Amino acid sequence: MSGKPAPTADQLLQQATAWWTTSIIDIHPGEIAVRGYPIQQLIGELTFPQMIWLMLRGEIPGRAQAKLLEAALVAAVDHGPQAPSIAISRMAVTCGLPLNGAMASAINSLDDIHGGAGQQCMELYQSIAERIDAGETEEKAVELELDRFIAERGKIVAGFGHRFHPVDPRAVKLLALVREAQERGDVSGRFATIGTLIEKSLGRRKGRQIPMNIDGATAVIYSELGFAPPLGRGLFILSRSVGILAHAAEQTQQGGRIKGPMPPQIPFQYVGSPLRRFEPQHTEST
Amino acid sequence: MSGKPAPTADQLLQQATAWWTTSIIDIHPGEIAVRGYPIQQLIGELTFPQMIWLMLRGEIPGRAQAKLLEAALVAAVDHGPQAPSIAISRMAVTCGLPLNGAMASAINSLDDIHGGAGQQCMELYQSIAERIDAGETEEKAVELELDRFIAERGKIVAGFGHRFHPVDPRAVKLLALVREAQERGDVSGRFATIGTLIEKSLGRRKGRQIPMNIDGATAVIYSELGFAPPLGRGLFILSRSVGILAHAAEQTQQGGRIKGPMPPQIPFQYVGSPLRRFEPQHTEST
Amino acid sequence: MSGKPAPTADQLLQQATAWWTTSIIDIHPGEIAVRGYPIQQLIGELTFPQMIWLMLRGEIPGRAQAKLLEAALVAAVDHGPQAPSIAISRMAVTCGLPLNGAMASAINSLDDIHGGAGQQCMELYQSIAERIDAGETEEKAVELELDRFIAERGKIVAGFGHRFHPVDPRAVKLLALVREAQERGDVSGRFATIGTLIEKSLGRRKGRQIPMNIDGATAVIYSELGFAPPLGRGLFILSRSVGILAHAAEQTQQGGRIKGPMPPQIPFQYVGSPLRRFEPQHTEST
Amino acid sequence: MSGKPAPTADQLLQQATAWWTTSIIDIHPGEIAVRGYPIQQLIGELTFPQMIWLMLRGEIPGRAQAKLLEAALVAAVDHGPQAPSIAISRMAVTCGLPLNGAMASAINSLDDIHGGAGQQCMELYQSIAERIDAGETEEKAVELELDRFIAERGKIVAGFGHRFHPVDPRAVKLLALVREAQERGDVSGRFATIGTLIEKSLGRRKGRQIPMNIDGATAVIYSELGFAPPLGRGLFILSRSVGILAHAAEQTQQGGRIKGPMPPQIPFQYVGSPLRRFEPQHTEST
Repeated sequence: MSGKPAPTADQLLQQATAWWTTSIIDIHPGEIAVRGYPIQQLIGELTFPQMIWLMLRGEIPGRAQAKLLEAALVAAVDHGPQAPSIAISRMAVTCGLPLNGAMASAINSLDDIHGGAGQQCMELYQSIAERIDAGETEEKAVELELDRFIAERGKIVAGFGHRFHPVDPRAVKLLALVREAQERGDVSGRFATIGTLIEKSLGRRKGRQIPMNIDGATAVIYSELGFAPPLGRGLFILSRSVGILAHAAEQTQQGGRIKGPMPPQIPFQYVGSPLRRFEPQHTEST
Repeated sequence: MSGKPAPTADQLLQQATAWWTTSIIDIHPGEIAVRGYPIQQLIGELTFPQMIWLMLRGEIPGRAQAKLLEAALVAAVDHGPQAPSIAISRMAVTCGLPLNGAMASAINSLDDIHGGAGQQCMELYQSIAERIDAGETEEKAVELELDRFIAERGKIVAGFGHRFHPVDPRAVKLLALVREAQERGDVSGRFATIGTLIEKSLGRRKGRQIPMNIDGATAVIYSELGFAPPLGRGLFILSRSVGILAHAAEQTQQGGRIKGPMPPQIPFQYVGSPLRRFEPQHTEST
Repeated sequence: MSGKPAPTADQLLQQATAWWTTSIIDIHPGEIAVRGYPIQQLIGELTFPQMIWLMLRGEIPGRAQAKLLEAALVAAVDHGPQAPSIAISRMAVTCGLPLNGAMASAINSLDDIHGGAGQQCMELYQSIAERIDAGETEEKAVELELDRFIAERGKIVAGFGHRFHPVDPRAVKLLALVREAQERGDVSGRFATIGTLIEKSLGRRKGRQIPMNIDGATAVIYSELGFAPPLGRGLFILSRSVGILAHAAEQTQQGGRIKGPMPPQIPFQYVGSPLRRFEPQHTEST
Repeated sequence: MSGKPAPTADQLLQQATAWWTTSIIDIHPGEIAVRGYPIQQLIGELTFPQMIWLMLRGEIPGRAQAKLLEAALVAAVDHGPQAPSIAISRMAVTCGLPLNGAMASAINSLDDIHGGAGQQCMELYQSIAERIDAGETEEKAVELELDRFIAERGKIVAGFGHRFHPVDPRAVKLLALVREAQERGDVSGRFATIGTLIEKSLGRRKGRQIPMNIDGATAVIYSELGFAPPLGRGLFILSRSVGILAHAAEQTQQGGRIKGPMPPQIPFQYVGSPLRRFEPQHTEST
């Protein structure tokens, strides 16, 4: 496929091998090592959250850290059938999709707005932490970065406020767990503090409580544990996948064929061109 | 990764090249040939339906055949925002997905029930045609294969009946086009006949009209044109993708964030366990 | 949209509410209850596998049962970048997809063949268990159902044999954990026995070892724990999602744009029509 | 689910109806109107590209405009099995996915980098056109906006250059068609001119030819025809879906189970931690 002097077969083969390079897993006949550990030594020993951490970061976390990660994963599994991801999952199985397909269509929708809030919130926290590290006071760092976030992304600050919950019970509990871990010395607590300061600042700015929501609270935990922001989205997906699966399975039990978003007896609203007659000559010129 | 005597680099390279084998397209620097034709000779000459046919079947169809294919593709583009595929597409963009992502989540749902009806209907038609070819009368062949279809797949016969339209205006028009093409000698018309006989038989069986729907009518056309049944699903997807795209684009214009299936003011219904208190010791034994 | 006597607004509203019915989760402002438990009582108390179980089955499992589930979830997270699901995930991020999109495209591919093996294997185990319950001997039940499975699905028996591993170290470890749990009385062990008998029968049939693989071993665990077969696929997806995420994240770090399956220097093989000239009149008739 | 004074059932119902609002399609029993036209008047009359245009933009284009759109749709259907979207599609069917699933996983990957180039290129063209409209000379407008594009997005300018083709035969042909249409007065030709000026500027900047590629050429056509940039991505997807479908169908014919990106005889490269022993106490503290 090319006029250039061809590399040798050995060179091409080496390129092919290098094309798929990983530091996550090594596999030989009868042997599987994850991050260097023979997998049979991990099975039955590691908790699932520890395995998630090992896969994503290369080392096995301590139990205290893993417990915090676990709490965050437990907290975000579901928010009801009217969340679009869950609704998509349920509609999908009524179109004939097996669980993998329903989960795929649903997980796909956990994009910037629906699933990326945690990631954005982690970026906000970490930009504030960097300012503090550079010598800014906590309050000033929060104000400056909040201003920047709002200027760049609009007035909805990822991780704070909820259109449904005046207070998000998941966030309250998760924050309490972080503070307990801080007291035991398991985490620094600095991101919990940053999150709380943002909450206060937003309250002052808007003149009403804009409490931390589940995304803001899990972002505190993932930041305390040292995860990079894009992994915040990834961890949320692992968690919410449980709800997506459970709802798809429940809908399969309930049955239904080609389930739309509302009962078909409720019409949609058409606001387009009134009825008109097609004249074939329409298409002869613009 | 193996203890076997390794093949030579040349052999492995040949295996790698053969791993991706196609008869659809050949590419060399500055040259692209589709089914043997330099692509620049096709652009501006072939209609889009002709190109679809060439890609799927290897040869360029005549204009009359391509026009029938075109009519079927035009007919199935959309069936409103309450079709789950369309609703998924619209909800997805409000979660942050770009058009490719919204289309993916939606197209995925065109599975056996929502998108596979045309394919199943083509299989039914072709099983009837095979019985006729084997000497059975048309009526007998229809009865036998209808019985078998219903026994295997249940009472909803793919391609017939519609929960919304007493008569499907798309099917009526498409059938008329097939009959015109038959008169001109462009198609045999045998699948139109088979479809009509099924419609009659279903009417007798149920004591009311079960008219051919869009899937039944496009299945007639795709069968007349010689497409294999799985491609019936594929062609439907190409057609419905237009509606999925148009609705995703319209929703993007309308805006909205994390749009659920119904307005959030309308609650969902919870029918599970009443509120209960978690006792940590619950988890100590089953 | 209909000529029928319209239901009242109250009736329609009730239908809309009932359209989305669930027993999984209830949500009110400031309150979220999962299977009846206020979520803040579960966060920090339940392990992630316990939460998965609660979501899927409605009750909180005992710790011993949850540990077995956890072992299975830990075991199946990854099988290297050449598994198509993982390769898809890695290629996808180089096309611009964020983690949710890469995970969606990859998870989608965990279909009947790649992700459904565990489900099929559970169905096989359970059909054998039913025969035993009906009075058949263990050996006879295994032979009869294996014969049926092979007749219906072909000679590759889901859950047994591996094209790469002579012995799958994950399966060995998981089976050992089941036997330990059996000794403690936490599970019955009957599915471990059934799996072992299938392994022996396949060895006799083929004249060589066809050892249980990861799918066969997780199917033992999920069956011991009472999961329905379709959830076997779902649990595998939750597990493999971890690997899909880790590889997508690693590829993001490695960079790359529009990464194909092999280095572009290695050509694909074209086996179609030789180069030919397009004559526009081709399209005038068939 | 709320403590606020509840709206009446009629109000809620109106909200539900308005929740799904469209100007694309209206449906009543026995009647389907697309953009106001009864669909049976369009079937058999409109070409598929005309229907695509009508769905996306609300009006039926003239034949000359539709022919240009058709040429662009024909041109971009495929670029071989090593394009990641095509490879994903082919691997997916070997995992058990039907055509809809394979197409979904593949189309999903047509994101910013793989499928968004045309959209980005249209944005570049249109920003240049706006500068010209504001009084800038063509050359100056091109330089300024190219500088901005490169500053914001990096040195790879969407729509120009190809890692494989020194000259892209599709682009050459499409540009020729635009110029012919311009001579007939069907389009203005201004975006063809802008594209050509970018090509020249890039050649000067890099000291070698960076010719317009398929994305640059289709972006010229879509801009000449007045499409908004996001629809450029959408139209590309409609076109490339044909190749994705054709390759998925061909792979189904070829067979294969769980096809990876390279033959399994070619290993991947592991570059992670050397083999190490897991010590359970690792997990007691960080």
